[in-house]
Amino acid sequence: MAMIYKGSEVTEALNERIANDVEELQSRGISPTLTILRVGERGDDISYEKGATKRAEKVGVAVRNVILPLDVSEDALINEILKLNADDSVHGVLMFRPLPEHIDEDKVRNMLAPAKDIDGITDLSLAGVFAGIETGFAPCTAAACMEILDYFDVECKGKQAVVVGRSLVVGKPAAMMLLDRNATVTVAHSRTADLPGVVRQADIVIACVGRAKMVDASYLSEGQIVVDVGINVLEDGSLSGDVDYAAAEAIVQAITPVPGGVGTVTTSVLMKHVVEAAKRINA
Amino acid sequence: MAMIYKGSEVTEALNERIANDVEELQSRGISPTLTILRVGERGDDISYEKGATKRAEKVGVAVRNVILPLDVSEDALINEILKLNADDSVHGVLMFRPLPEHIDEDKVRNMLAPAKDIDGITDLSLAGVFAGIETGFAPCTAAACMEILDYFDVECKGKQAVVVGRSLVVGKPAAMMLLDRNATVTVAHSRTADLPGVVRQADIVIACVGRAKMVDASYLSEGQIVVDVGINVLEDGSLSGDVDYAAAEAIVQAITPVPGGVGTVTTSVLMKHVVEAAKRINA
Repeated sequence: MAMIYKGSEVTEALNERIANDVEELQSRGISPTLTILRVGERGDDISYEKGATKRAEKVGVAVRNVILPLDVSEDALINEILKLNADDSVHGVLMFRPLPEHIDEDKVRNMLAPAKDIDGITDLSLAGVFAGIETGFAPCTAAACMEILDYFDVECKGKQAVVVGRSLVVGKPAAMMLLDRNATVTVAHSRTADLPGVVRQADIVIACVGRAKMVDASYLSEGQIVVDVGINVLEDGSLSGDVDYAAAEAIVQAITPVPGGVGTVTTSVLMKHVVEAAKRINA
Repeated sequence: MAMIYKGSEVTEALNERIANDVEELQSRGISPTLTILRVGERGDDISYEKGATKRAEKVGVAVRNVILPLDVSEDALINEILKLNADDSVHGVLMFRPLPEHIDEDKVRNMLAPAKDIDGITDLSLAGVFAGIETGFAPCTAAACMEILDYFDVECKGKQAVVVGRSLVVGKPAAMMLLDRNATVTVAHSRTADLPGVVRQADIVIACVGRAKMVDASYLSEGQIVVDVGINVLEDGSLSGDVDYAAAEAIVQAITPVPGGVGTVTTSVLMKHVVEAAKRINA
């Protein structure tokens, strides 16, 4: 039976470190502050906002909410972002996406100052991830995968890592971060020939395709560490990752569960980035 | 015996396309213009400058030279770049690097407008390469590798591509560009366990490690397409790629020679980018 890499374990350790950092900053008169910028009333956004607010409270990060109507003009939204950029009491900004269709998302997201871009949505943050340097921040989900590997002391150096999925929010940044850790990194995807065979050879698997249980027994082999990024809603309303958990449990060395894996760590990584942003600016 | 993917063949076809594009632009009163910005009198730079100027003449791209003394101040250099950004008659800027040590290269390179960044040195160009979108341009050497694969009709989709080397100027951008072409892409490097074994499995190999003849027979297998980016000077003064050419010739399906391979294509890609920059701005 596989070891279960529970997100809660990682989160607990991470929260403690963040809370200590917050205390240290507060002792210098700095209160790490996250602004959540939401356009409209989408249920997903509101539910993430609740979770993030609770997590922020736990670690001592202050949260401010900016809520704009769904029909907000592009100019008004940009103006709001520029105000947040200029506001020294705000260290990180989380802006929910997608934005409404009448807004040019590429233009708007790049208005955010990279120094406050704690979820890696600007081109300059992405360039930093690509280059392996700290211009802005990595997208939180990709960073959460690394946080899990680090917490459980998974050695990446010289290991074969396969990232299944090539999105700009998870697959590509995770690949770059694994490369920084000196893994040999393969990015596989829907066009990969013999995808099960490619994944089977990996020591470390990051599954981020967004298809429930796609990574089944045929993809897996003994000794693998599997990080399951997917959160898919099944017909019966329950959640499933991109990995067939039951099948994996019997084969691999370790796996993150869904729910209770990467997702919960992501929220703490967001807080870590806010604190890191506050530290960098006050270094 | 392997097919030889001669750079001159690729370059000839590419030059013809570029020359046609230049004519078309000129008929609209636009003269595609490259500015080469050089600091100091380094031999490598001067020799590349000569080659580029000759190639530019061949395809009808105008070249202007800006030569600054080695002790130029950072401010003066930045001022020069800002002038070039503002000058509508300049479409592309090639700035030689490394810059002298008293200059903050990261700061200076990012002053260049991405629209004129024809060798992909700005963070915004790199973000574009990472995201697979046209913000600026890809570094010319990585783009030259793709130009060669395209010219010789190498199908990338579903193929296993291994990039040996993970630099920001060749390895990483080449990996992203292969991913855009739907290859399954592995980035391998000095820390890769069993590097020969990993490379042997590839259908397409991009060698960009900068070590003469490192990729020897033990890395190679039948049917492979090998693109050799390395240009290394041997003790006897002759040039060698990163691949042991004599060994490879007897094993693989096709290989680019050194010299006469990627290098010559790179210079034409530079011109292609200048013309592309002129087209984009006048679209």
